[in-house]
Amino acid sequence: MKEPLLLDGREVSKSIKGQLKGTIDSLTKEGIVPKLVTILVGDNPSSHTYVQMKANACSKIGMESERIFLPTETTTEELLQTIRQLNEDETVHGILLQHPVPSHIDERQAFDTIALEKDVDGVTSHGFGSTAFQLNAYPCCTPAAIMEMIDFYNIDVEGKHAVVIGRSPILGKPVSMMLLNRNATVTISHSRTENLEQMVSQADIVVAAVGKPKFVKGEWLKEGAVVLDAGYNKGNIGDCDYETCYNRASAITPVPGGVGPVTIATLLRNTVLAAQQKAMMREVSHT
Amino acid sequence: MKEPLLLDGREVSKSIKGQLKGTIDSLTKEGIVPKLVTILVGDNPSSHTYVQMKANACSKIGMESERIFLPTETTTEELLQTIRQLNEDETVHGILLQHPVPSHIDERQAFDTIALEKDVDGVTSHGFGSTAFQLNAYPCCTPAAIMEMIDFYNIDVEGKHAVVIGRSPILGKPVSMMLLNRNATVTISHSRTENLEQMVSQADIVVAAVGKPKFVKGEWLKEGAVVLDAGYNKGNIGDCDYETCYNRASAITPVPGGVGPVTIATLLRNTVLAAQQKAMMREVSHT
Repeated sequence: MKEPLLLDGREVSKSIKGQLKGTIDSLTKEGIVPKLVTILVGDNPSSHTYVQMKANACSKIGMESERIFLPTETTTEELLQTIRQLNEDETVHGILLQHPVPSHIDERQAFDTIALEKDVDGVTSHGFGSTAFQLNAYPCCTPAAIMEMIDFYNIDVEGKHAVVIGRSPILGKPVSMMLLNRNATVTISHSRTENLEQMVSQADIVVAAVGKPKFVKGEWLKEGAVVLDAGYNKGNIGDCDYETCYNRASAITPVPGGVGPVTIATLLRNTVLAAQQKAMMREVSHT
Repeated sequence: MKEPLLLDGREVSKSIKGQLKGTIDSLTKEGIVPKLVTILVGDNPSSHTYVQMKANACSKIGMESERIFLPTETTTEELLQTIRQLNEDETVHGILLQHPVPSHIDERQAFDTIALEKDVDGVTSHGFGSTAFQLNAYPCCTPAAIMEMIDFYNIDVEGKHAVVIGRSPILGKPVSMMLLNRNATVTISHSRTENLEQMVSQADIVVAAVGKPKFVKGEWLKEGAVVLDAGYNKGNIGDCDYETCYNRASAITPVPGGVGPVTIATLLRNTVLAAQQKAMMREVSHT
């Protein structure tokens, strides 16, 4: 059996960061250091790890970052206040609210309070609409990372049948719109889908965004399918059963080292673009 | 062969308008007459007919309406100015920019200049995002009309496979999101789709939103499929070949008298809701 192409997220991430370096340097020379602020509410240990990783990634590439920790008992209104202050803060280019927030908080309202021009994680409903309509908005990071993988490895999307498993606002829905805008035929499936296996068996491209470890089995796949696994479950396990999928796929993302690292790279890029946009606006207002 | 259920848009429209009557009356008593302003740029005869139909529908149900006609040579900036004035105008509850505008105008920018709270036609990218995420926004009228048909005739959507043909921002994309939010498995197909017929042949529900007369043939359909035809081509011809589809479908929308009349009813409803929202805001600010 032919081995599948490994879609190495670390390579893709390196390439994106390489492209950013020059922009960050010239912005810094102009006195603008791209700055990301992450907000973490509560003390979920995985979330702590994620925001730490994002801060490290910023510092490594010469960007500024700040982490705001809010206690679990923070109210929605208090969180919105924090976001509004960051919206106003001229030195902040990107705002990321770490998902999930404690259940008593209205996460959607918090996301939608982030100013569109600072929504570098691509979580606002307005940003989603703009992405779906191919307008100017920072694309949601994990879906954008999946598209980066596709581009880096020249995976053919046009006219292909992509089956997305999952329909969340920050993964299934946006990646479906992005694939559609690249001329794939897109099926969005989910927990209520009847005959999911049969649907997956027709896919040229499978995007797993379901949040259940080893959910997609190799025997569901069409021989030669492209498998993009956006899942990150406890113990570094993806949404696809890697071993069995590996045997059927023509290309596959490993977990870890697949979509994850590219997600962080897209976050950095969105933040740099936001800083660049800001610099351009400043120039315009000076002329 | 069993005759299919006819999804009569005139019946659905009558039902929606019946429900609106009471609200319009009580708003009028409070001194608020729901008002829709339509903007028509250029002299497309079909567009003239459409805005006239919308104005008539308003007047019949006791709503106000105003038609603004702008010449073909109107610039994007001039159109945006008109929209911004209507955004500010306290007496206007809903703004509809008749599609299509002359090709030199940036239609998307014009749509997105309409204030979200007056976007009763549901054409803004922000409104699309809000609808996709099931937030509070006026849903795009033709997709909303399709959902009304489904509800009125108790068509089972949950877990069913819906194939949408077309991916426009005001039809294919929003109806896909609405069906998805009702737990259908949704495939979005389009001009670049390979094997469209095979895809359609698997559908429990087919939504034709492709803009090509008699495009969908009866022989493509699974026996017993539900056929929702959102097309309106010259000569009152739908996107589906009605005769052959009729023989295979379990339920079908006629053209004319299908989705069209319901679209206007959803526009009236969105405008009434916008006026009601306005009245509520006024009350809040008075207390």
